[in-house]
Amino acid sequence: MAKAKGRAVKPTLHINNDPGEATVFHISQAQLQAASRKHKGLLQRINVTWSNGAQGYEAGLRDADILLASHFDAKDLARRAPGLKWVQVTSAGVEKLAPLIPPGVLLTNASGVHSPKGGEFAMTGVLMLSHGIPRFATGKEQGRWEQNFTTGVEGKTVVIVGVGAIGGEVARLAKRFAMKVIGVSRSGAANRHVDRMVKQRDLAKVLPLADFLVGALPLTVETRGLIGRAELDLLPRHCGIVNAGRSGVIDYEAMREKLELGTLAGAVLDVFDNEPLPPDSPWWKTPNTIITAHSAVDDGVRYIPRCLDIFFDNLGRHLSGRKLRNIVDLTIGY
Amino acid sequence: MAKAKGRAVKPTLHINNDPGEATVFHISQAQLQAASRKHKGLLQRINVTWSNGAQGYEAGLRDADILLASHFDAKDLARRAPGLKWVQVTSAGVEKLAPLIPPGVLLTNASGVHSPKGGEFAMTGVLMLSHGIPRFATGKEQGRWEQNFTTGVEGKTVVIVGVGAIGGEVARLAKRFAMKVIGVSRSGAANRHVDRMVKQRDLAKVLPLADFLVGALPLTVETRGLIGRAELDLLPRHCGIVNAGRSGVIDYEAMREKLELGTLAGAVLDVFDNEPLPPDSPWWKTPNTIITAHSAVDDGVRYIPRCLDIFFDNLGRHLSGRKLRNIVDLTIGY
Repeated sequence: MAKAKGRAVKPTLHINNDPGEATVFHISQAQLQAASRKHKGLLQRINVTWSNGAQGYEAGLRDADILLASHFDAKDLARRAPGLKWVQVTSAGVEKLAPLIPPGVLLTNASGVHSPKGGEFAMTGVLMLSHGIPRFATGKEQGRWEQNFTTGVEGKTVVIVGVGAIGGEVARLAKRFAMKVIGVSRSGAANRHVDRMVKQRDLAKVLPLADFLVGALPLTVETRGLIGRAELDLLPRHCGIVNAGRSGVIDYEAMREKLELGTLAGAVLDVFDNEPLPPDSPWWKTPNTIITAHSAVDDGVRYIPRCLDIFFDNLGRHLSGRKLRNIVDLTIGY
Repeated sequence: MAKAKGRAVKPTLHINNDPGEATVFHISQAQLQAASRKHKGLLQRINVTWSNGAQGYEAGLRDADILLASHFDAKDLARRAPGLKWVQVTSAGVEKLAPLIPPGVLLTNASGVHSPKGGEFAMTGVLMLSHGIPRFATGKEQGRWEQNFTTGVEGKTVVIVGVGAIGGEVARLAKRFAMKVIGVSRSGAANRHVDRMVKQRDLAKVLPLADFLVGALPLTVETRGLIGRAELDLLPRHCGIVNAGRSGVIDYEAMREKLELGTLAGAVLDVFDNEPLPPDSPWWKTPNTIITAHSAVDDGVRYIPRCLDIFFDNLGRHLSGRKLRNIVDLTIGY
């Protein structure tokens, strides 16, 4: 019973790197050591096991008190990981994972990790739309020199749907460019960088005011299909859309039709219903659209270090019995 | 001699709108009236004549003391406009016009008019390069889903070649994003938003440090060919280029080769040697490149109002014998 005794003293952390995922999402020994230096003494208080594939993963689950991973097979977790108390994921969106978490296991996500890059990306998208970049890109696709004298973002209105970590950062940057910022959120709670905040049920009131619409929502039962055809029809023709959240929030087919018809000025889209977009997807030929291949919010350099910062902060809390940060409310899904 | 007498009292301003140019560059009666309200009493002190084509233009020149125009035929101006004292142009680059200005005639340009939009455009270009947008645009052209996890601009270095009105505005915005800003200018004079300023002759020392290179130079005898093949070879492979100045400053063929080879990460180019780019130009198929069709610095809404602000300010100075703003030094060409 040496093992049971050991576990009582030192909890076991299992780290799983999914070999099917881009290496930018993999956690290395060196990164773990580097992050632990900012949180002294914590790494010594746990055992760490690693897996890089199915087999090591199964054994790792069996003994794990804590699981740290990006994507992983979470089927029947209660049986496969009987000692599991806490799962820290290195993603923010957990719509597929949340329903699989067994009762009594805490799920924490990496919400906030994406906000510096995601907010900067979405603001870049707003600037691009204001400067007509998606349209110029289509001009290049078609070998067509067409001048388009736009104007800057100052005084224009951005409607940010979802004022969480990324949406809040977009708001902050937009105010620096002297834009008008309208926020739409579940709670309608005030944010210092948002000029006017409304609840999701009042979305229709603010859509006609949008020069730009930024989608930064997680996919939940409440947000799925939130921006449907009727809502898109409320946007002015000159409006452009940036989506750095989840595609299921917006009716993509209706949006694509509007881009084809020119009743929407442009789009900068990071996410799609079917990823990777298949070669025969009509999106490849849709005009005035920039496609960023679900890369926009993940920072190739700072991503894992930021995730590990959250993990170690939470580990300190876990070991001393305090409340963790970024706990996912499994009833609402974020 | 009523005419001569009238001219002694009220100088004649001739305004020429070139019918061959985009209407965004045309000055309307309404715009002139609107601008004059901010500069009370000045419009009453001059006669105004207008032309919208060759014939009215010739007669207008004959009686003009002051000429206000964008592009215009300036050949043999001394003979055609014997009373001309001052030409205010609504463009910033005057490399073609400057040599045609007769001795004794003042040329003032619209330098500064482009800086709000031009600076914002160039900063947008830097952000786009940092977020891999030119590369994603090429992915879309080719129907290829390729993830590219970049990182934000914080802490990265932008080298701004030409720290005038536009370059200075880029520097200001870049500092807001916590970038390192290196400036290259003719004088090497300090700028509060530039961390390190060097003279043009020291360009080679700073090129290897550039994560981004922003070209914002006028075309003069001193700047033509400044960034040739040897200079481009000094840039790191991951560097991207934004050119919002004049194309003659950079060796475009060498730049294009580097983009094809992948030894330059991307480019956001507003200006080209032959505009409009011909349909068979290799630039249409050059990867990792955004082409903005010489529209980037001209503000479709605020352009002419800003030009007229400069004009009326200068008119007040002219009528009271004070020194004008934005006088072009004809010996250096800007």
